[in-house]
Amino acid sequence: MSEETFDVIIVGAGVLGVATAYYIQLNSPEKKILLIDRNLAAGQANTAMSAAAVRNMFASSTNQILTDTSIKYFEYVQNELGHELFFEKTGYLWLLSESQFKQESVQLWMQRMKASGVHYKVYNKKELKELIPGLNVDFSGDEEAELMHLQEADFGLFGGDCGVLDPTRLVEHYFEEFKKITHVKPRFGVCVKKLLLEAVPKLDLPGEPHVWQQKKVTGVITDKGTMRAKTVVLATGAWANELLDPVGIDSMTKAKKRQLFVIHAEDNPKLHDLLDTKGFNELGCIPFTILPSAGVYFRPQLQERGFWIGCGDKFGRGYEYIQTDDMMVPESAYYENSMYPVLAKYLPAFESARPVNSWAGGYCYSPDRIPFVYEECGVLVVNGASGSGIMKADALGRIADALYRGEPEAELFGGKHVSSKMLSIKDRNVEIESVVI
Amino acid sequence: MSEETFDVIIVGAGVLGVATAYYIQLNSPEKKILLIDRNLAAGQANTAMSAAAVRNMFASSTNQILTDTSIKYFEYVQNELGHELFFEKTGYLWLLSESQFKQESVQLWMQRMKASGVHYKVYNKKELKELIPGLNVDFSGDEEAELMHLQEADFGLFGGDCGVLDPTRLVEHYFEEFKKITHVKPRFGVCVKKLLLEAVPKLDLPGEPHVWQQKKVTGVITDKGTMRAKTVVLATGAWANELLDPVGIDSMTKAKKRQLFVIHAEDNPKLHDLLDTKGFNELGCIPFTILPSAGVYFRPQLQERGFWIGCGDKFGRGYEYIQTDDMMVPESAYYENSMYPVLAKYLPAFESARPVNSWAGGYCYSPDRIPFVYEECGVLVVNGASGSGIMKADALGRIADALYRGEPEAELFGGKHVSSKMLSIKDRNVEIESVVI
Repeated sequence: MSEETFDVIIVGAGVLGVATAYYIQLNSPEKKILLIDRNLAAGQANTAMSAAAVRNMFASSTNQILTDTSIKYFEYVQNELGHELFFEKTGYLWLLSESQFKQESVQLWMQRMKASGVHYKVYNKKELKELIPGLNVDFSGDEEAELMHLQEADFGLFGGDCGVLDPTRLVEHYFEEFKKITHVKPRFGVCVKKLLLEAVPKLDLPGEPHVWQQKKVTGVITDKGTMRAKTVVLATGAWANELLDPVGIDSMTKAKKRQLFVIHAEDNPKLHDLLDTKGFNELGCIPFTILPSAGVYFRPQLQERGFWIGCGDKFGRGYEYIQTDDMMVPESAYYENSMYPVLAKYLPAFESARPVNSWAGGYCYSPDRIPFVYEECGVLVVNGASGSGIMKADALGRIADALYRGEPEAELFGGKHVSSKMLSIKDRNVEIESVVI
Repeated sequence: MSEETFDVIIVGAGVLGVATAYYIQLNSPEKKILLIDRNLAAGQANTAMSAAAVRNMFASSTNQILTDTSIKYFEYVQNELGHELFFEKTGYLWLLSESQFKQESVQLWMQRMKASGVHYKVYNKKELKELIPGLNVDFSGDEEAELMHLQEADFGLFGGDCGVLDPTRLVEHYFEEFKKITHVKPRFGVCVKKLLLEAVPKLDLPGEPHVWQQKKVTGVITDKGTMRAKTVVLATGAWANELLDPVGIDSMTKAKKRQLFVIHAEDNPKLHDLLDTKGFNELGCIPFTILPSAGVYFRPQLQERGFWIGCGDKFGRGYEYIQTDDMMVPESAYYENSMYPVLAKYLPAFESARPVNSWAGGYCYSPDRIPFVYEECGVLVVNGASGSGIMKADALGRIADALYRGEPEAELFGGKHVSSKMLSIKDRNVEIESVVI
């Protein structure tokens, strides 16, 4: 097969891939940039499987700046550029027991948000009960709740600048803008089998590259042939290890299965009431809400008049080396036995409600819960967003572009500057994140 | 099958497993401790595949203290207890080019060794050539050497308190001492299939543990049945992910294949001369030597009148999720094409010498090149020594024991105290190591 050559090949047309493609092409208009994905369209894999909520309520200044600037860019896209993202400021509501609220990590989180100017508000139990009459804030005497180790909702930590959006629309924005300026038509249905690792210079010895040779990733070997580029960008999320490990680059990330189950309000007036909870936001809807126990959360879905129910699996849910096909299959028993009992205890409105839809995907976990953007031996990696890639996509795309151009700093939306090596492995300079879902 | 119950099950009878078993039993004489291994004897897997060199010449104070106290214990075992370890103070000799020697990381390494009282000596090129007449220190005009990017040996960094030992003897020491005090006969040929993860308390619900239940590792499921213990110690090295990932504990480690090739001096007088190099140590032998380029190193093997040749593979040698069977198979082409050309350039005595033996195993890589010792949900993990588990075994066994007993500090050999959580993931307090082979 003939070999084609590009300046940059970007593997993965999820939200991080399209944002990176857009910013690299924008700032290097002469470069030939090929965007490829194994799926048949952009944003169809884990980006589409996400809960697609966005928040600036992080404990680390690193994640705060990545999300805050990205969210402001999303508002700009929707309000100034007129590209509808269905970005709705529902707010985020963390429900916490008194002991959780008093934890050092939670106090530090609030202090750091205050220091960074991230707006938040604290509700007490009485206020919560007034705002959400259907919320069960008293488990006293409930033996089942005790058996389930459920913590009571004593406090609500609310961030009004947070919300939800349509990830497909966001991908579409970057992808359409990229298509306007790229010299190379993006290609879909192209599966990268491995990175092409070659000796520099090539001596054409059998078995090279040998240990005494300098080496570099010079392209990708795909099911449609070999393609070469000076830089290969990997925006492959939970698939990164499969490509990086064989060349000896440790991505530091692992995959974890996450699932979402959709409940529609339908003819259940209590669920309509819950969805239409007033007092938190201008939309007059319930915020994206995290329950105090078991990692269960839900987001409102206003167009569908429903809720997406998720769970931040911790100990007990396996890590996987790479994403498996099995990760794409939601488990109805998991909803029934793990999520539903918790959900229905806090919000009896959900009693007897059954999912009308569900999906699952791969969550790309980083050990410090901060994403990675680094370049090593011809590969530029953008991943490890620990379930919050959408809300950091704009900042990560700009940082990847700055790194590509060899710029010491990246300018984020709004004019803030950060070191382009801040998210690398070798020169990492981040605050460890404690607030992930 | 019937289920047996112990206080502690230790999985893996490599050097870290036997040292940990010994110290836990020594300090908790009443506990029932079962040591198991999939192999048919202790120390037969990666411990036996190691180059078994020991050094205190690390750049991090963390690795310095782990190795320095362990090496002093090994001397005590050999000299005071009379258990022959074939611990020979050959010394370690790092050969470096001028530009390598001037690197900030190398200067910092020397500063830190000085600060910690680690003895070392610097030789210049002239002194090296006098001590090792067979060493090629001048590649000028050698086009092949230039093509191979070989750096000249301008400096030698020598540590006289370092050496080599017989790993089988070291394992035997801990294993025999453990057998004297354990209540339970160690079992071999027992393969752990998975960790037993259970809800606490068990409610006997279908599919438990569910997300709202507290959970804990309560034993192991093996090919010989299920065994329960309050604490399961994993000293499984490069196999850890296979057991930890499914329960949702990220070991942070990865495996890498490493190979050793044995050259005997036989009837080659130049190799005998090289082996009998005087001036470095009381044994009158060549030290364990690391060449300036490509990661190639060799250790003298005095009993066999030969050398073990190894290579610290970097970029280009794949990481693996877990150790594979393939990792146990040495590649003769790798010796021929990668290691030999480098070796023969620096030391022409090796020209035309061919390996008489070879083996390969799994190197358990930690991202900061510092080992892990931590307890999480019923599992106590001891691993990630990045190729230097043998030389840290005594300290790691003592730290694991202190952590098991809930002691805030571990007392290392010689009386030094360190935090027992220093090597954990959550409360990690270490210096990043820059000097690994």
